[in-house]
Amino acid sequence: MRTVTILGSTGSIGQQALDVLSRWWEPVRIAYLATNSNVELLAEQVNRLQPLGIVVVDERAYMEFRRRFPFAGRVLCGVEGLQEAASDPCNDVVLVSLVGAVGILPTLAAIRAEIPVALASKEALVSAGHIVMQEARARGVPVLPVDSEHSGVLQCLLGEDHASIEQLVLTASGGPFRTLPKERFRDITVADALRHPNWRMGNKITVDSATLMNKGLEVIEARWLFDIAPDQIRVLIHPQSIVHALVYFRDGSVKAQLALPDMRIPIAYALSYPQRSPLAVERLDLAAVGQLEFEPPDEERFPCFHLALEALHRGGTMPAVLNAANEVAVAAFLNGALRFVDIPRLVEEALQHFTVIAEPTLEQVLEVDRQTRQFVHRQVQQCAFQ
Amino acid sequence: MRTVTILGSTGSIGQQALDVLSRWWEPVRIAYLATNSNVELLAEQVNRLQPLGIVVVDERAYMEFRRRFPFAGRVLCGVEGLQEAASDPCNDVVLVSLVGAVGILPTLAAIRAEIPVALASKEALVSAGHIVMQEARARGVPVLPVDSEHSGVLQCLLGEDHASIEQLVLTASGGPFRTLPKERFRDITVADALRHPNWRMGNKITVDSATLMNKGLEVIEARWLFDIAPDQIRVLIHPQSIVHALVYFRDGSVKAQLALPDMRIPIAYALSYPQRSPLAVERLDLAAVGQLEFEPPDEERFPCFHLALEALHRGGTMPAVLNAANEVAVAAFLNGALRFVDIPRLVEEALQHFTVIAEPTLEQVLEVDRQTRQFVHRQVQQCAFQ
Repeated sequence: MRTVTILGSTGSIGQQALDVLSRWWEPVRIAYLATNSNVELLAEQVNRLQPLGIVVVDERAYMEFRRRFPFAGRVLCGVEGLQEAASDPCNDVVLVSLVGAVGILPTLAAIRAEIPVALASKEALVSAGHIVMQEARARGVPVLPVDSEHSGVLQCLLGEDHASIEQLVLTASGGPFRTLPKERFRDITVADALRHPNWRMGNKITVDSATLMNKGLEVIEARWLFDIAPDQIRVLIHPQSIVHALVYFRDGSVKAQLALPDMRIPIAYALSYPQRSPLAVERLDLAAVGQLEFEPPDEERFPCFHLALEALHRGGTMPAVLNAANEVAVAAFLNGALRFVDIPRLVEEALQHFTVIAEPTLEQVLEVDRQTRQFVHRQVQQCAFQ
Repeated sequence: MRTVTILGSTGSIGQQALDVLSRWWEPVRIAYLATNSNVELLAEQVNRLQPLGIVVVDERAYMEFRRRFPFAGRVLCGVEGLQEAASDPCNDVVLVSLVGAVGILPTLAAIRAEIPVALASKEALVSAGHIVMQEARARGVPVLPVDSEHSGVLQCLLGEDHASIEQLVLTASGGPFRTLPKERFRDITVADALRHPNWRMGNKITVDSATLMNKGLEVIEARWLFDIAPDQIRVLIHPQSIVHALVYFRDGSVKAQLALPDMRIPIAYALSYPQRSPLAVERLDLAAVGQLEFEPPDEERFPCFHLALEALHRGGTMPAVLNAANEVAVAAFLNGALRFVDIPRLVEEALQHFTVIAEPTLEQVLEVDRQTRQFVHRQVQQCAFQ
């Protein structure tokens, strides 16, 4: 019997995880489900899955849930609730698929309780990777990436020595604007940016894929997750999204992980690691695909990618600034308050505004996150007034 | 200090192995070198490397070596000499890169002495795979493939459960005649067949690549090496020879091994397994390669491939018949005694002439090998008289 908690069960990853678990090869029990504020869907999941407890992060939504939905299990609230659910000793694995910096504390709570974490929230590694991975390594707790690229790296590294790694390569589809001429970027609409060629994902990450910020964040994640120097991580554009990652070894050999673009594969791998669960997803047919294409990334049209690498090289709190600035800017773009090309501009302003704190504590990371959001919100308002 | 014996040191694989070992990352000692009859090159290698001993398989060449080259170490002769060298307890690993069925007995001798075998000779697995692998598994002795495709599979399987394997895929370049129209196959010359697009190899295996027999033999090898049912092994044409093998897992995930076509990579992997030796070979640059192409194999123009699968399905002694018949037919083609299209014809005749012996002993395998060679030699002579 495998006991699983899903923090962020109403989001795209959370729903796909529940889909995967509904046909799991071994008995599964759901411990906790958590949402930020989508209580309608949470109530439906609770009815169907009968978890031990739930968490509603948003206080108003929490009150609404209590008022409208009778539920005999535990009902927790806020980030404290997430931490409590994550660290419940009944968990065999906790899937953290919350949007934004809210994922950091529950990830740490699970690790400190020595519970393996399946991690879909980028922020825990982008903003606080040095803290999260240090705690995880000290306790020997696996942090299992749910990103397809990092899952690919993890699979390629299975059974290999860390010392024999020469380079990690993360692939990127290039997003909907891979071939768009530079002069047309200023006219990109929200609908354009949400039209991802290969992946069905949440809106925020879909925009991040369109700016290539997502790939920059993934490089930062990989740096911590696999304890690899930044200059050993490369990105390759691969429009078909079939090869997700490659690992180069010191003997000139390369291993790659491939699959049709289906998030259920990395989700299932993280939930069953180190085993592989039988999964009824479509199989890759390379003869039918015919060819796999690769090209170098174009940093000129996708400045977000370069900004992320810059933040990684400056280190300390800079990735937290990058991430928080990007989150606010993307939300503003999605709300129609910013143009697509304003996203890198605002992120760059934030990176220039803040000074690095080297080796920051978690409190410093969270404080910088808060300050950056405030700063970028102000910049967004100024944009709106122009 | 790693002590290595190379049986077949004057062949293509043997010479590349010595090249790799000459720049090895750790101290290396050469125990034995062995040749069939190339005593000139062997003498040069002996001078350079000062092995403990040597083996000359051919008796006349052995006498010649003794007469012409003073050497203070042991000088052994024949298959008995190979077995003695292979089983010397000083060996850390024995590379068996002998051409033909002569590789079977020394492979078994090493395994019985519990010495890991780096295996480049296909025959040991094609003709006697059930015997070789049973002995190896019973003693827990690694049999490490030197073929790029099987080395790729081995690398992809590292750390994985056998139960989670769904399918193995071996790639094939398609050889020099991949796009040649069927009606022009009868005019293929020896020079045409030796013009392999990607690999520098010995003549016999280069012709086998041109007929696709090589890929059929590799399917048979993979069946035994990885203990996989024949219908779980597929072949995919991949003209660039960069992806060498893929493993499909039951969760829909696929792992692939890639490298520029350079036999030194699988040779080094087999000699350093489970570690990876630093190797100064050219690195794969996928952005420069641009695209990787895949297509299904065409069995109509390449009947040898189908014949090999048929021999595998009939089982027992049939793969030994296939292999021996092919060896004689290819040698006759290289000598100008046969046309290219006669190779599959003679192999098919042999497969029809002999009846299966199920679960054969080693003696039965060797006897069938001998009988098949006799039979096909007679057929070749009849061709020559026509």
